[in-house]
Amino acid sequence: MSAEGASEGVKLWGGRFEGATDPVMEKFNASISYDKAMWKQDIQGSVAYARALQKAGLLTAEECGSITGGLQAVKEEWAANTFNIQPGDEDIHTANERRLKVLVDRAEKEKTILMPGYTHLQRAQPIRWSHWLLSHAWPLVIDLERLRSLYHRINTCPLGSGALAGNPFPVDRATLARELGFREATKNSLFAVSDRDFVVEYMFWASLVSVHLSRMAEDMTLYSSREFNFVLLSDAYATGSSLMPQKKNPDSFELIRGKAGTLSGNLCGFLMVMKGLPSTYNKDLQEDKVKMFETACTLQGILQVAAGAMATLKVNEAACRRALTEEMLATDVAYYLVKKGMPFRMAHGKAGEVVKLTEDLKCSFSQLPLDKLATVSELFTEDVSAVWNFEHSVEQYEAAGGTGLSSVNSQIADARAFLSSFSLTQQ
Amino acid sequence: MSAEGASEGVKLWGGRFEGATDPVMEKFNASISYDKAMWKQDIQGSVAYARALQKAGLLTAEECGSITGGLQAVKEEWAANTFNIQPGDEDIHTANERRLKVLVDRAEKEKTILMPGYTHLQRAQPIRWSHWLLSHAWPLVIDLERLRSLYHRINTCPLGSGALAGNPFPVDRATLARELGFREATKNSLFAVSDRDFVVEYMFWASLVSVHLSRMAEDMTLYSSREFNFVLLSDAYATGSSLMPQKKNPDSFELIRGKAGTLSGNLCGFLMVMKGLPSTYNKDLQEDKVKMFETACTLQGILQVAAGAMATLKVNEAACRRALTEEMLATDVAYYLVKKGMPFRMAHGKAGEVVKLTEDLKCSFSQLPLDKLATVSELFTEDVSAVWNFEHSVEQYEAAGGTGLSSVNSQIADARAFLSSFSLTQQ
Amino acid sequence: MSAEGASEGVKLWGGRFEGATDPVMEKFNASISYDKAMWKQDIQGSVAYARALQKAGLLTAEECGSITGGLQAVKEEWAANTFNIQPGDEDIHTANERRLKVLVDRAEKEKTILMPGYTHLQRAQPIRWSHWLLSHAWPLVIDLERLRSLYHRINTCPLGSGALAGNPFPVDRATLARELGFREATKNSLFAVSDRDFVVEYMFWASLVSVHLSRMAEDMTLYSSREFNFVLLSDAYATGSSLMPQKKNPDSFELIRGKAGTLSGNLCGFLMVMKGLPSTYNKDLQEDKVKMFETACTLQGILQVAAGAMATLKVNEAACRRALTEEMLATDVAYYLVKKGMPFRMAHGKAGEVVKLTEDLKCSFSQLPLDKLATVSELFTEDVSAVWNFEHSVEQYEAAGGTGLSSVNSQIADARAFLSSFSLTQQ
Amino acid sequence: MSAEGASEGVKLWGGRFEGATDPVMEKFNASISYDKAMWKQDIQGSVAYARALQKAGLLTAEECGSITGGLQAVKEEWAANTFNIQPGDEDIHTANERRLKVLVDRAEKEKTILMPGYTHLQRAQPIRWSHWLLSHAWPLVIDLERLRSLYHRINTCPLGSGALAGNPFPVDRATLARELGFREATKNSLFAVSDRDFVVEYMFWASLVSVHLSRMAEDMTLYSSREFNFVLLSDAYATGSSLMPQKKNPDSFELIRGKAGTLSGNLCGFLMVMKGLPSTYNKDLQEDKVKMFETACTLQGILQVAAGAMATLKVNEAACRRALTEEMLATDVAYYLVKKGMPFRMAHGKAGEVVKLTEDLKCSFSQLPLDKLATVSELFTEDVSAVWNFEHSVEQYEAAGGTGLSSVNSQIADARAFLSSFSLTQQ
Repeated sequence: MSAEGASEGVKLWGGRFEGATDPVMEKFNASISYDKAMWKQDIQGSVAYARALQKAGLLTAEECGSITGGLQAVKEEWAANTFNIQPGDEDIHTANERRLKVLVDRAEKEKTILMPGYTHLQRAQPIRWSHWLLSHAWPLVIDLERLRSLYHRINTCPLGSGALAGNPFPVDRATLARELGFREATKNSLFAVSDRDFVVEYMFWASLVSVHLSRMAEDMTLYSSREFNFVLLSDAYATGSSLMPQKKNPDSFELIRGKAGTLSGNLCGFLMVMKGLPSTYNKDLQEDKVKMFETACTLQGILQVAAGAMATLKVNEAACRRALTEEMLATDVAYYLVKKGMPFRMAHGKAGEVVKLTEDLKCSFSQLPLDKLATVSELFTEDVSAVWNFEHSVEQYEAAGGTGLSSVNSQIADARAFLSSFSLTQQ
Repeated sequence: MSAEGASEGVKLWGGRFEGATDPVMEKFNASISYDKAMWKQDIQGSVAYARALQKAGLLTAEECGSITGGLQAVKEEWAANTFNIQPGDEDIHTANERRLKVLVDRAEKEKTILMPGYTHLQRAQPIRWSHWLLSHAWPLVIDLERLRSLYHRINTCPLGSGALAGNPFPVDRATLARELGFREATKNSLFAVSDRDFVVEYMFWASLVSVHLSRMAEDMTLYSSREFNFVLLSDAYATGSSLMPQKKNPDSFELIRGKAGTLSGNLCGFLMVMKGLPSTYNKDLQEDKVKMFETACTLQGILQVAAGAMATLKVNEAACRRALTEEMLATDVAYYLVKKGMPFRMAHGKAGEVVKLTEDLKCSFSQLPLDKLATVSELFTEDVSAVWNFEHSVEQYEAAGGTGLSSVNSQIADARAFLSSFSLTQQ
Repeated sequence: MSAEGASEGVKLWGGRFEGATDPVMEKFNASISYDKAMWKQDIQGSVAYARALQKAGLLTAEECGSITGGLQAVKEEWAANTFNIQPGDEDIHTANERRLKVLVDRAEKEKTILMPGYTHLQRAQPIRWSHWLLSHAWPLVIDLERLRSLYHRINTCPLGSGALAGNPFPVDRATLARELGFREATKNSLFAVSDRDFVVEYMFWASLVSVHLSRMAEDMTLYSSREFNFVLLSDAYATGSSLMPQKKNPDSFELIRGKAGTLSGNLCGFLMVMKGLPSTYNKDLQEDKVKMFETACTLQGILQVAAGAMATLKVNEAACRRALTEEMLATDVAYYLVKKGMPFRMAHGKAGEVVKLTEDLKCSFSQLPLDKLATVSELFTEDVSAVWNFEHSVEQYEAAGGTGLSSVNSQIADARAFLSSFSLTQQ
Repeated sequence: MSAEGASEGVKLWGGRFEGATDPVMEKFNASISYDKAMWKQDIQGSVAYARALQKAGLLTAEECGSITGGLQAVKEEWAANTFNIQPGDEDIHTANERRLKVLVDRAEKEKTILMPGYTHLQRAQPIRWSHWLLSHAWPLVIDLERLRSLYHRINTCPLGSGALAGNPFPVDRATLARELGFREATKNSLFAVSDRDFVVEYMFWASLVSVHLSRMAEDMTLYSSREFNFVLLSDAYATGSSLMPQKKNPDSFELIRGKAGTLSGNLCGFLMVMKGLPSTYNKDLQEDKVKMFETACTLQGILQVAAGAMATLKVNEAACRRALTEEMLATDVAYYLVKKGMPFRMAHGKAGEVVKLTEDLKCSFSQLPLDKLATVSELFTEDVSAVWNFEHSVEQYEAAGGTGLSSVNSQIADARAFLSSFSLTQQ
């Protein structure tokens, strides 16, 4: 291409720009669809600001009344044309709470079901199914505390920061903030127009919540496999095949697991938008809304589907029980000896000898004759037969946080007490 | 809440699931809107597969003709109802090429403009504006090579992999692949249904291209500031203010810079989706399409806006020249001595002495009398006056890749040769 | 290669594994160097647990005494051989506080310096240098609040969770937790061994703090460029060149900006480690320590260097003042009219007319004769001359959070009050 | 704190800076330990540059000889003091190749072992264990191609770019590049000092390789669980417990899975370092080396451990076979009918009817009497008994890429052909 061609190329571009803005640029620049999502907040802010200006003597009572009246009319019109939020919809905070109820309620009802506890995906010790449920309920409790603390922190009002230098009129920003339901006004106008921590923090919160749920989801994809077979998902949260009726794909939990990756990507991308930006407002910050709304919307889906899928699945108690094998009681042999006064290190060694005995005799623990056990330690007596029992095993863990019944009951009570007293706005 | 309440909670959920799927789950699960984007590929694939089945003897010629005829009708119908691609639109590969032309063409036209080169954002040495333009053109050349290599790699056809085990009919997958325009058929059916490297690689490519452009965009936000004042953006790619006419915000470049963060976030999120997934297909993989299309769409916007903004801005040659200050010639003093035979280390020290001389005498290099220079080294003679000249300075760098005119001309020729011979499909 | 070769290949590998573990695997698996960093906590935990066992009747007082005595000896030995923490070192919380003091103290001392405020990197309105300093102090205040809330949340003790099922002995975990300085014991043993939220949250906190500082650092690299020239870095935090004495590279701020990227990468990587992991402990979690310590160490460097560089730089008041140009007062013209009773929208239009007047007459605002101004609006009277004054401009912004002197003073007082009352442990 | 306190605070800092640089800053700034890793390259570059200067007439033959002689001496000294690379060590490219051999060799040897193929972690269809092995070998083949293409792209020499403007001496950069083993010289000096794409691309490559291996690792943690029980890890790559001899934790694969997250975090962090940086060199770029070397070192560990663990594990053929259940043959019923001429959609429906029949009669496929089958379709004849056979099932998939024996053999041959002809440097 010659220099003339280049010049034409420039002209070609130039020719498109008779209007103020290149249409491609216009689209690239647009955030209207996301701003629309916030019309209610916009109007509410305008009303409060009109009142503040009246107090500052910059608007008469009539002018203020006329403005707020007009805005009220706009609000009604918009409201009429907006898609009605369905009764089934709910905010994220409530969705999170309900999902938690679901887990706690199941834990209450299904306390007698025992299953293997795993580490490294290897069977380790018997636990209660309820204890497993609660292990996924507690992160959600802490997520709610985290949300409350985040809400408190970001609940400040930037209104009255101007373009960047502040507000030149005697507006009482503290009152304005309170009237709009904020805790306080932001402290510095440059920082106020610059700050997107409320976006970053929310995205992090959503990422963490979804990572928590991705781990529960991973457990559920395993537990609903034919090999584990601990749970059966309801049709509403799985897909099947007329040809392979044994196949019930846990799509709901797979999607939850996958979307956790996407939400963390949103966080990571927005941290990258923020990093190294000059002070105050730069257009880069416009990336906040699309990812913020996408994050909130995805998280709401995750929470609702998680709650629904967990509420409707069936536990296969028999399969859980079958997966409990006597080798998982080896630790209990050591505990038995410790409770009879043997130091733990020695008891651990003796339990190892008992394991070896079962291998030599090709039998299970409960099939070992007492006289054979006595060759390992004289502390083994008739009462050792109580050890060969999974209920006995889990009942040992009565210290707070353990899988024993009393501990599980305490956990349920604690989680319910938390839920009944929880409020997002109260610190 | 009592255990009965819990039971009701479960029932409440259960009550919603009379149909096969919870409506919330249905929405959560949906990827139809993204699948629609690929209807043309779907039909094309179906036609080719019908032909392969005919060759394999599983369809008669009539059956095959009837099927492909029907699909053709569907295709026409859909095509008629699809939004017409505007003539202004273009694919990413072309957009990338054009953006590159724009840079190379400007470099051709504006070779005589000199400006400061910066490191650490500190003025270092004089360079040509064209050399700066080309420094942002070369990454794009390499991005095109990268895209070609990526295209070659992913241009394989998974059709005929079945659900996961392969195809039980005598279908010739190699022919099928070629007929659909692929380089070859995928090698292993389990891997084929499992693989999303084409998504990951494309997202990485888009991230890297946008990071390259974010650096050019950062330069442009600096150069369009009042303090630098090297360039003036066209109205089509900036926003202004009637009240502050001096203020022309480089929105286009700020958005490019911001969106580079978002694209890397998409990459990062999808890597996270993939990591640790079991083999073959899991529903998590459905996250691929929405992020893939979002990435492609955003990148296209970035490329178009970058090309438009770069094509239409004006360079302020006078401001660029004013920013060249004589201290930037200190290195040239050392080079002068080296060219006269002084070892570089000694020449560097001598140049430092000359700098000190200008400070002591509170004058610039060109104001230094020759006899003063001679006190530093006898190698300084009349011809040193040629050093106090910015054109002279840049012209020294004639080695390949330097800012000298011949090197800049070679770069332009090389870039054009690349562009004229480049083809995405030819390796 | 033949099948025999393959078999040999396997044997070759097998031959290396006479010991229990492949040495490569051993190294891959090792986290000893990071565990060592926590020896003090390890011993403290062992002592407390011995006491809890004594209370539970599982250790006699003598046994407990003997154990704790031995651990005390180990502790002394280790302490003697550990690198001594230098007096100059400090924890992150203190480093963060000090950095904040530095900013607030400078704000106190340099209140009279005016500079341009920027949006989109374009000069917008005059502000105080102190207001800019405070705009970077407030995020740090909120970072401290964030750290306090995080500390409260994670300050729980997992001791007594066993391998996963809990503790089978009558150990009082609540007391144990309090004795070790924790707020409370963790609630569920499965969750306790599974949870790494304290790592994720800390990494997020560090990322956010460093992103805040990266934005201050970006400002400083701009302000220390020749084009802005607002600040001069001390030699201790910059690098120079004997040959180019005008060049002072702001390495300290560039490194802060760069390392912010690295810290966010650590967060992102660890979120990815956690996502989709099965419940309880998996070896993947071992990735926590190396990245956690690297993050803490990097953040400490960032905080110290930021404090040092900000404390020692010099502000070039004259250059800041020179950068204030009268066009930046256009908004003030509108405010002048509003204060005289004109509605804002009309005032905005009138100010635009005044701007046009300056362009027509090729003069600045202050050079406009009053009679010319009167043609735009009769509200312009003699007192308009007060508007052509940058001190007057900034003094308008007295509403809370603005750049007016009283607001800046309030901000300084508020920040100091926060600092004097702040405690990490008190909620 | 008073203004005096503030002033003291500043002095306190100032007092530490008697030397040129704050010691904290010095450490923050240091990259020596990483530069040391490249001493050999440094010396090699210096020798080549000395020769280029001689050719350019800037060094005499004697001077050049003296310099290169001295550098040779330094090289020998350093080499003597450097830790010797152990014979067991290997570069990443070789490690990747060997890991691939391991998979292909096992695939060759264990072709007769059948196992379930999974989608959504649900048993779907029978496959060969070798087909599964190959499904993890092919991504590694493509990773090697990817590495070759990456190597080609980045194999360019920046030497002779100067600080940023180029080289002022008549140095032949093309020859210099070739002498140092590069493909060509970089094209533009500004871009050359600015570019870190070789770091970003390598990090992406390492991330993708490790994500591939994380998926294999996930499969192995599942397959080595008691529930699947398909494989038994060698002691060298697992950890056990004397007390719980049934427990063999797949630490090696868990670490591989975890470290994949860390490597992607490194990529993400470095993309964030690069994004929005001004042109040419900024100190932020120093973050490249530490993360690059960490990435290379971690990846090498991953590759070696993956190869070792895969080479030494034992397949439990009996357990794999037991996991094959007749429901997995439902698709084969449909295929049977298709092969007899029934259209696929109808065959699919008929197979569903057969499934229902087994449910009604509470029997398996092979227990269905022929007369019952005939009620579904007359196409069912004696030969249907061949369908109730897993070997028969997998043997159907003989189309390229399927799990049939001939396809598996072709895959093995193709992979070996690739390996024997592969060279990193040949495009």
